[in-house]
Amino acid sequence: MKDNPVVVAIIGVGLIGGSLALALRQNRFSRKTIGVDSNLLHQQQAMNLGLVDEINELDAAVKSADIIILAVPVNTADALIKKVLELVDQQVVIDVGSTKTSICKNANLSNKRGRFVATHPMWGTEFSGPTAAVEGAFKEKAVLICNKEESDADALMITEKMYKSLGMHLLYMDAGAHDLHAAYVSHISHISSFALANTVLEKEKEENAIFEMASAGFESTVRLAKSNASMWLPIFQQNRENVLDVLNEHISQLRKFKSCLEKENYEYLLELITHANDIKKVLEPSKALIE
Amino acid sequence: MKDNPVVVAIIGVGLIGGSLALALRQNRFSRKTIGVDSNLLHQQQAMNLGLVDEINELDAAVKSADIIILAVPVNTADALIKKVLELVDQQVVIDVGSTKTSICKNANLSNKRGRFVATHPMWGTEFSGPTAAVEGAFKEKAVLICNKEESDADALMITEKMYKSLGMHLLYMDAGAHDLHAAYVSHISHISSFALANTVLEKEKEENAIFEMASAGFESTVRLAKSNASMWLPIFQQNRENVLDVLNEHISQLRKFKSCLEKENYEYLLELITHANDIKKVLEPSKALIE
Repeated sequence: MKDNPVVVAIIGVGLIGGSLALALRQNRFSRKTIGVDSNLLHQQQAMNLGLVDEINELDAAVKSADIIILAVPVNTADALIKKVLELVDQQVVIDVGSTKTSICKNANLSNKRGRFVATHPMWGTEFSGPTAAVEGAFKEKAVLICNKEESDADALMITEKMYKSLGMHLLYMDAGAHDLHAAYVSHISHISSFALANTVLEKEKEENAIFEMASAGFESTVRLAKSNASMWLPIFQQNRENVLDVLNEHISQLRKFKSCLEKENYEYLLELITHANDIKKVLEPSKALIE
Repeated sequence: MKDNPVVVAIIGVGLIGGSLALALRQNRFSRKTIGVDSNLLHQQQAMNLGLVDEINELDAAVKSADIIILAVPVNTADALIKKVLELVDQQVVIDVGSTKTSICKNANLSNKRGRFVATHPMWGTEFSGPTAAVEGAFKEKAVLICNKEESDADALMITEKMYKSLGMHLLYMDAGAHDLHAAYVSHISHISSFALANTVLEKEKEENAIFEMASAGFESTVRLAKSNASMWLPIFQQNRENVLDVLNEHISQLRKFKSCLEKENYEYLLELITHANDIKKVLEPSKALIE
């Protein structure tokens, strides 16, 4: 492994891959960025937007890079990880997907498992593709590193160095624990938003009224419903059991609100709302971490 | 009615009342702002923050104002509207509450109904009280004016002039239609957020993991869960039937996601997500209006 700056190959130059490419060039962690993408339009956009220095085939990109970042939907990452590990020698392979159990299981099938580091930078938006890439995306955000004991010490160290260079806050977790927590802090929010969007689209016929009345609160709760299906469907598939548990709990919480309204039990409704206000304690410490 | 600038009495100097006070002074629509608030701390804060020029009792404030703005929780507005209308002569009384059927019904009990204009500026945050007041809050947002035919022509005109002076986009609607649409674009988002917050708080014991992992998507969907119970409980009470309808639809939409996951029916899950993506069409025209 050469000293910094290094050559980085980004497999999947979309929202996350593209934003990582920008950030790692800007802080001079990378001296060259090679993009790999099966989508021709995305290849062109990534070059035109200056996200990467060149576009290449997977094999060639892996061979000439020091660090390979897998930033594709989680089902594609699962399909690619073994092949990418077969191509590497001393390089480091890092994935950035929203589920971790499945990719770790697939990586374990390779005798080069040690070169792989499973990570999840906690940043994203509802947009996708190279045009969604933004500068300064990861600064002061958390990044989860999973099953670190299964990675070679030097691969782990290089990965930590990369994320630290972006100003990220490192957290370590077992892949199973990650997937459970991710169901709570990310996956259920998306399902709730998708369902809320469908609720409005289903029942509301006079769309003009909604167009015009839609307020900031509405936009805030449904913005995730714009999220890309090809990214989110595989996440729900892979984290199916945890997502189902949380979804059941969420439906049962909504039923409590429904029951209060049906029975006009406003004392209990007040209790439910006041209890929900405690989410401040969850949200504000996370802000405190950023400061 | 004197020419501009006028004296404005704000009953309830909180998030909305305080922000209106600031905006109407800043654009010189008001030459003097009188605050009325039953909460002593809020009285002091409103003065200290310079939201109002003086604090006074309800009767005196109404008597010396040209425009009286009711910016209290909707149950308090219901209780006050008849009394305030009794006190007015040629002044205009405007409410800014999130439900409109109930206040119009109460106003109709007064023989001075014509002096009242029922409105709902589509702006708010999850914070409350005078310290939550912000500058520039209403610019380019929509404001609903309900049952305008029940207001005197001059009262309506002054109200329209006031909201236009804030750069707002005027919409007219029957109170019943307003409450139905508001259930979709605002009330259900709040219930969904409250329930989502309770889901996380209920099941997630290792809070540290959530603190640290909580991402922007999570914060976006649960931020409304911080909203004040004393404002929202009366809204849900007054709009109970519409909110129940929308809540039932929302639960049934969530059950579709649940059923897909249970049966591993990923084709239909993809369809549900892709359909939800259509919410772009609802959100983006509303942005277009702003531009």
